[in-house]
Amino acid sequence: MEWLLRRWKELLPGLTTPALQKQYRYRCYHGSPHRAKRLVLSQLFQPLNLPEDSVVGLESKPDDLTCKSQRLMIQAGLIYPSSPGCYYYMPYTVRAMEKLVKVIDQEMQAIGGQKLNMPSLNSAELWRTSGRWDLMGKELFRLADRHSKEYCLGPTHEETIADLIASQGNLSYKQLPLLLYQITRKFRDEPKPRFGLLRSREFYMKDMYTFDTCEEAARQTYSLVCEAYCNVFNSLGFRFVKVQADMGSIGGSMSHEFQLPAGIGEDRLMICSNCSFSANVETINPDQTDCPVCKGKLSETKGIEVGHTFYLGTKYSSVFNVNFHTAQNKPVLAEMGCYGLGITRILAASIEVLSTEDSIRWPTLIAPYQVCLIPPKKGSREEMGAALMDNLYDSIVEAVPQIKGEGVLDDRTHLTIGKRLKDANRLGYPYVIIAGKKVCDNPPEFEVWNQNTGEIMFLTKEGVIELLSKVQVP
Amino acid sequence: MEWLLRRWKELLPGLTTPALQKQYRYRCYHGSPHRAKRLVLSQLFQPLNLPEDSVVGLESKPDDLTCKSQRLMIQAGLIYPSSPGCYYYMPYTVRAMEKLVKVIDQEMQAIGGQKLNMPSLNSAELWRTSGRWDLMGKELFRLADRHSKEYCLGPTHEETIADLIASQGNLSYKQLPLLLYQITRKFRDEPKPRFGLLRSREFYMKDMYTFDTCEEAARQTYSLVCEAYCNVFNSLGFRFVKVQADMGSIGGSMSHEFQLPAGIGEDRLMICSNCSFSANVETINPDQTDCPVCKGKLSETKGIEVGHTFYLGTKYSSVFNVNFHTAQNKPVLAEMGCYGLGITRILAASIEVLSTEDSIRWPTLIAPYQVCLIPPKKGSREEMGAALMDNLYDSIVEAVPQIKGEGVLDDRTHLTIGKRLKDANRLGYPYVIIAGKKVCDNPPEFEVWNQNTGEIMFLTKEGVIELLSKVQVP
Repeated sequence: MEWLLRRWKELLPGLTTPALQKQYRYRCYHGSPHRAKRLVLSQLFQPLNLPEDSVVGLESKPDDLTCKSQRLMIQAGLIYPSSPGCYYYMPYTVRAMEKLVKVIDQEMQAIGGQKLNMPSLNSAELWRTSGRWDLMGKELFRLADRHSKEYCLGPTHEETIADLIASQGNLSYKQLPLLLYQITRKFRDEPKPRFGLLRSREFYMKDMYTFDTCEEAARQTYSLVCEAYCNVFNSLGFRFVKVQADMGSIGGSMSHEFQLPAGIGEDRLMICSNCSFSANVETINPDQTDCPVCKGKLSETKGIEVGHTFYLGTKYSSVFNVNFHTAQNKPVLAEMGCYGLGITRILAASIEVLSTEDSIRWPTLIAPYQVCLIPPKKGSREEMGAALMDNLYDSIVEAVPQIKGEGVLDDRTHLTIGKRLKDANRLGYPYVIIAGKKVCDNPPEFEVWNQNTGEIMFLTKEGVIELLSKVQVP
Repeated sequence: MEWLLRRWKELLPGLTTPALQKQYRYRCYHGSPHRAKRLVLSQLFQPLNLPEDSVVGLESKPDDLTCKSQRLMIQAGLIYPSSPGCYYYMPYTVRAMEKLVKVIDQEMQAIGGQKLNMPSLNSAELWRTSGRWDLMGKELFRLADRHSKEYCLGPTHEETIADLIASQGNLSYKQLPLLLYQITRKFRDEPKPRFGLLRSREFYMKDMYTFDTCEEAARQTYSLVCEAYCNVFNSLGFRFVKVQADMGSIGGSMSHEFQLPAGIGEDRLMICSNCSFSANVETINPDQTDCPVCKGKLSETKGIEVGHTFYLGTKYSSVFNVNFHTAQNKPVLAEMGCYGLGITRILAASIEVLSTEDSIRWPTLIAPYQVCLIPPKKGSREEMGAALMDNLYDSIVEAVPQIKGEGVLDDRTHLTIGKRLKDANRLGYPYVIIAGKKVCDNPPEFEVWNQNTGEIMFLTKEGVIELLSKVQVP
């Protein structure tokens, strides 16, 4: 390595002048002494403020840009389209996604879920065995390797997991129930990808597969997973409904969807105001207006499906011979369930249901960053507040360890506070802290916006720390 | 939901007897009161003890099972083959991988790296633009969507990131250097996939792409990333060499590989014992035996490549028009670098270089679990030690928060301690704690095996806690 450095210096003498070195140090944020301590907005790769017409031009047809979350996410630079139904997830989105994954991991592991990871390349043979190679038609992305062996890119993994469990041979009744899940990228060749991350062709999904000894046990496992799903949605603060649902190409004998009521939703739901009945309209007579349980009135709403559960029985275990051994050492087919949560879809659905027309709002728990700090404009009367803001930032990091790395300092001090507040408002940090006029008071007070409630408070440094110490991160 | 429960009860009256309910509670580990508190081995999905012949039968040709890590990982149930070069990663492996990802995230973010996520479906158009659609030949997995639009599954993302950055238009010199990375699944149609996770067709890779204002700045960024790579490998305790390397199909004008010396390695390295020169034999005259720098003697070794860095110059930025604006608002091509770490390959390489012929050893930092606790055999003289072991488990969790979730209790008490110790030894927990004869002493002492050093200690509960409080997890 040293040898190479020497060689570069020989080859490029003109480039290693002290002046250039200094320039590099100046430019290089990872060389800056502040870099390690404070996260500054000017250095984040978060494209902002694209003019609306350039956003529309990003999609092949302007008509496709038809929902709020897609428009807001592209405008704020949270996602960027690469090809139809495929997106780059930008750093803010990756942060939110990683937090959501943590929340889901916690809930899945609390009920005994174990995380594994299955291949995306699924052999055609497996899908032919279940009959879905033909059934899925054009929704499967298909390809062949250099030896002409055929594969599909897994949109779901019933075949794959059943084949794995069957191969384990000596599964005992003592090991059941078995709850296995993965959080991986899935592929589906949607006829009409649209609504951004709500209906894309590449997406992240949490898919769980369960194995039980008998139908009753399997139904209890099913209830348990549904409860865990409710916990996930409750912790995100969603208003959601669980409705009876159609089995589609997955199959089985019972199914539920978890839906977020929203005008843009692609599912029509019928909900009884009198009892707890609720159903996707696909599962009932579409002209039915009375509740089949209590005869109460059904009302219609639209929903975004964010979770789906299936009780599969032995549909796949019988095809792939997924047996366990009973106490009497007799092989018996396992009862299966499968359960999906759309990871990237939940991100977009959050924004769809929580945001205003021009400002993104996140569930607090999974917001990319919890706090944005806005120091005074350079040259303003409050300019001395900049040092107080730096000090506040450092004090927060020290006093509230759980939000270390959760604060962004908007160092674009050539812009007014108002302009930067507008950006912060659009990106939806749960808390925005401004060094306004009262930062010159004694003791200095900061203006704190709780963006999810609309509340504005004036707090001292201690007050800010107390407020933020209540913030939860996964 | 209640309505459905009522309906099941009507339909299935015979299944809801109290006896069956009790049986389910008994079987159902997530219903067990202990479940939430202690992780027990009998409930983990970790297939163990496959007989060697059944392992060999898993691969299409027994000859392919030619390296230690592949054999050990399949035998211990860490991975399971699905199709040639594609593997299921079992729960222990996913845990190790998630820890490795944390270690790498920390190092990448310490130098200013920002994490994003790019699509796997890469349009043929992009790859044709760079010329690699043809150049890559059969190594690319290719497919077409329902509209006959062509894609490849990204094995690397120079085209994709360059296209993204070029699209951002207003990139300023003030935002550079920009270090963007992702940790995602990659695809490569290897002519001969082999050695398990060392050369597979689906694998996880950390790929970083950097953008700089000038060559000197880019070379400094290059050094910085190399240092971060050294930090990763040092924290894993690897003996590694950094060698000058060939640019292959990626291109550029400078490249280094990070290699772990190992007999199974597919790369031939020439290392000078006199100075710091070291090179992949591809980059020098293969018959050369003298060091080109100091004329010292070169010695040959084989290595497993675990990291690769490239200084790309403007190779991709010129094709995709990746410009930034200077202080004078002049557009200038950005200087690029790209950098890869093989995530799943590092897992296998760790096992390859650290394990014995029949026992897996992990770098302590990323071991799936840090501790295995083995209570006495049922009916043995030390049986009263079982309660002490439970108490030890609970005390560790309480006193050493960072290793909460890192301890597994081997509750298969129908087996001898010796049999279970053998399994623990094979799976490579850094620490194994046994309730042996001295557990009956006053105060009770536990037998503690440090599997990475071979050391055996007898410690009281307090001694165990003190020992484990020094354990680091990412």
